[in-house]
Amino acid sequence: MSSKKRILIVVMDGLGDRGCEELGGLTPLQATETPNLDWFTKHGTAGTCDTVAPGVRPGSDTSHLSILGYDPLREYTGRGPFEAAGIGLIGRPGDVAFRCNFSTCDDSLRITDRRAGRVDKPDTEELLSALDGMEIDGAEALVRAGTEHRAALILRGEGLDARVTDADPHEEGPILQSRGRVPEAERTARILNEFVRRSYGAMRDHPVNRRRIAEGKPPANVLVPRGAGEFPHIRPFPEIHGMSAACVAGVGMIKGICGVCGLDVLDLPPECTGGAGSDFSAKMRAAMAALERYDFVLMNCKAPDVAGHDRDPRLKCDVISRLDEMAGVLREGFPPDLVVAFTADHSTPCSLGDHSGDPVPIAIYTPGNVMDDASVFSESGCAHGRIGRIAGRQIVPICMDLADRVEKFGA
Amino acid sequence: MSSKKRILIVVMDGLGDRGCEELGGLTPLQATETPNLDWFTKHGTAGTCDTVAPGVRPGSDTSHLSILGYDPLREYTGRGPFEAAGIGLIGRPGDVAFRCNFSTCDDSLRITDRRAGRVDKPDTEELLSALDGMEIDGAEALVRAGTEHRAALILRGEGLDARVTDADPHEEGPILQSRGRVPEAERTARILNEFVRRSYGAMRDHPVNRRRIAEGKPPANVLVPRGAGEFPHIRPFPEIHGMSAACVAGVGMIKGICGVCGLDVLDLPPECTGGAGSDFSAKMRAAMAALERYDFVLMNCKAPDVAGHDRDPRLKCDVISRLDEMAGVLREGFPPDLVVAFTADHSTPCSLGDHSGDPVPIAIYTPGNVMDDASVFSESGCAHGRIGRIAGRQIVPICMDLADRVEKFGA
Repeated sequence: MSSKKRILIVVMDGLGDRGCEELGGLTPLQATETPNLDWFTKHGTAGTCDTVAPGVRPGSDTSHLSILGYDPLREYTGRGPFEAAGIGLIGRPGDVAFRCNFSTCDDSLRITDRRAGRVDKPDTEELLSALDGMEIDGAEALVRAGTEHRAALILRGEGLDARVTDADPHEEGPILQSRGRVPEAERTARILNEFVRRSYGAMRDHPVNRRRIAEGKPPANVLVPRGAGEFPHIRPFPEIHGMSAACVAGVGMIKGICGVCGLDVLDLPPECTGGAGSDFSAKMRAAMAALERYDFVLMNCKAPDVAGHDRDPRLKCDVISRLDEMAGVLREGFPPDLVVAFTADHSTPCSLGDHSGDPVPIAIYTPGNVMDDASVFSESGCAHGRIGRIAGRQIVPICMDLADRVEKFGA
Repeated sequence: MSSKKRILIVVMDGLGDRGCEELGGLTPLQATETPNLDWFTKHGTAGTCDTVAPGVRPGSDTSHLSILGYDPLREYTGRGPFEAAGIGLIGRPGDVAFRCNFSTCDDSLRITDRRAGRVDKPDTEELLSALDGMEIDGAEALVRAGTEHRAALILRGEGLDARVTDADPHEEGPILQSRGRVPEAERTARILNEFVRRSYGAMRDHPVNRRRIAEGKPPANVLVPRGAGEFPHIRPFPEIHGMSAACVAGVGMIKGICGVCGLDVLDLPPECTGGAGSDFSAKMRAAMAALERYDFVLMNCKAPDVAGHDRDPRLKCDVISRLDEMAGVLREGFPPDLVVAFTADHSTPCSLGDHSGDPVPIAIYTPGNVMDDASVFSESGCAHGRIGRIAGRQIVPICMDLADRVEKFGA
C-alpha cells in the first residue's frame, strides 16, 4: 500500500439547476465557462449524485449528513438539534433541543411581536445570561443566541422525551401550552411550559428591556420554543473513519451538522461571509491550510444556493465563475497526496427558487486515478463519467478508497 | 415553488430487445427512425432502467408494480389476484384469488378437455351466474369470466389461507384434491375442493351445456382453480402520492394491476385493441384527455411485446414506427405543465420470444428540465443521458420531483 492520502470534499451549495429560459434553456453550469472545474473532471472521474435518493428534495441538513456518509432517514431527528448546533450549542445524545424566538408578550403571555422588533446581539446574549443553566424539575436548560431574534434551547436530564408540541403559536396571540404527543413526553412538556413562564419572569424587568422600552423598542421578554428534536446518537465521523476531520463553512446550519458529526468547526477569514459575495478563493486557501493538520476537510460554499433561491440565473453564472477561480487556486497548489471531490448538496433551480430533487454533478480527482471520458463539469457533462449515478453517502467510501484508507474485505 | 405539474408514464410493453440477425445485429429500436421519441430524448433526460432489478426477468405484472413505485418482491402475491383484478374482480386484502379454467370432465371428475373447446362468452357468463355468491363453510365464492375458457375465483371469509395446492392437474386426467401446504390452509383447501365439486353439480345439466352437447361441443361443466394468491395489502397509489391517478390500457392484466393499486381504469375508444394493430394515437389522445381530469396517467401499449413474443423483428420495427407517431401526437399538443416518461416494462427480445432481464431505455421530458447529451431513443442511445441506471420504482419519485410535487426532507 502506498501512504494514505488526505481528502477534501468541496460542496457548492445548491449548485445543480434546471434549464433556464434566460440562458437559452441551459443550466447556469452549462452556460458558464469553468476551465478549472473542467480540468478536474477531465483528469479525474465524474458522475451524478442523489445526495439522499432519486427524487428526494434534500434540505442542506439531510444532504450534508448524507455527504458525510450517514443515512439521514435514520439519523435526522428534526431541525431543533441541528439549528442549536449551528449556533454552537452542541448537545449530547438524549438532550432535547428546540429552536426559539425572542418575542414580546404581555402579562397574560400573549405575544404581540413574534420577533421582538428583530432584537439582536448583544441584547439577546445579555438577556440569556439570566436564563442559562436554569434547573426545572431535575432538568437543566441551556440557551444560546443566534442571528437576530433567533435562539436555541436544550433541555438536559434523565427521561426527557422530544415528542412534545410547540409552545410557539407561529403567529401573534397566546403562547401555547406544550403537550406530550405520547404519555412519556408529558413531563418534558410541563418542564417546557415552566421554562417559558420563567423566561418571562426573568426577562420582563431585565435592565436590557427597561432600556429597550425607554428607547421605544418592543422588549424581548419571553423565549418561545418550537421544533423539538432529540439530539441524535451520531457516531463521530473521525471515530468511524479513523481520520481527523474539520469543516470550513460559513453557514450556521452546516457548521451545526458538522459539529454534531464530530468534525472540528474552523474559524474562517472575515472575507468568507457565506453570502453571494464571499471570497471563495480565501476559503479554499483556508481549506488547504486545514489539510496540513487534518486528514479530511469538508468545505461548503453557500453562494450558488443563494442565487438559486433568488431566482437569479445571471448571478448564479457569476458565482460559478468565481467558484471556478477557487478551483483554480486548488489546481495551482495541488498537493500530490490529496483526493478532491467537487459536488453539491442539492440543486436549487432558479426557475423554482427552492431546492429540488434533481441529482447533482460530481467530479473526483487525485493524481494517478482512472481518467474517464467526462471532460466538462456540468449536470450533463459529468454524466459521461464512470462514477455513474451514486448516492451521497457513497462519496466518502469512494474517496477513502482513492486515498488508500480502506481495509481489505476478504483475502 | 411553482405550481404542480401532471405526470404521464408511457409504457411501451416489451419494447426493449437484443440484436436481431434480420436487422444486421441492431435492435428494432436501433434500426427504426423515431424522430419524435428522439426529440423527447434530446430535449429531456435519458437513461436505462431495470424495472425490477439487474438481471431479473420481469413479468408485466411485477414490472408494472415497480413502475408504479411498489416493491414487487414485497407486494407481489402471485398471479391469481392480479388476473382476477384484470377481468374486473378486484378483491379485498385477505381474499384468496385463483385463476380458473372452464374444463370438460366426466362423472368421476376426470378432465377430458382442459379448455372445454375454448368455450367463450356469453356461455361462460351464463354458466357462472349459477355459481357466483355460493357459500361454503362460511366462505363466499365470487367468480368472473375472462377471455375464452378463462375465469377467476375469489374465496372471501374469515381465516382463509392461500397456501393451497392447485386443483388443476395442468393436463387431461383426474382433477386434483387441493391440499394445504401448511396446516392453517387445510380448511381453505377443503372449501376449494367443495367448490370444484359443486361447480360440476351446478353446471353439468345447465341449459347452456345441454345446448353445447346438442351442437356437438364439449360441455363447460367444471371450473378448475390454480395459482392461489392472497389479495395484497397495497396502499392505494393516490393516497401514497397525493395524486388522482388513472390508467389507459387495453390488456386485462395491466388494468388489473392498476386497479389493485387504486388507479381508475378508464374505458378506451374501440380502435384501441391492445393488439399489434391497435391505434396508438387514439390511445394517446385518450391519455391526454384523461390528464385534464387526473394528476397522473399510466398508459400501456401492448403491441411491441406481441411482436417480440411472435419473434418478428420486422413487425416490431413497424410497431415502433407507429409508436413514434403516437409520441408525435403528444409532442404536437404538449401541455406545458406535463412531465412525460417514455419507457418499457421489460424487454421481449425477438430472438428469445419471451421476456428478458435486459434493461430498458427511458426518456423523461418536461419544459425547463436539464437537457443532457442523449439524443436517440434506443437501448444504447438513452445510456448517454444523465438518468444513469435506475430501478423501475424510482421513476415515479423522479417524475414527481420534476413535477414539483415532493415535500422537502430537512431544511
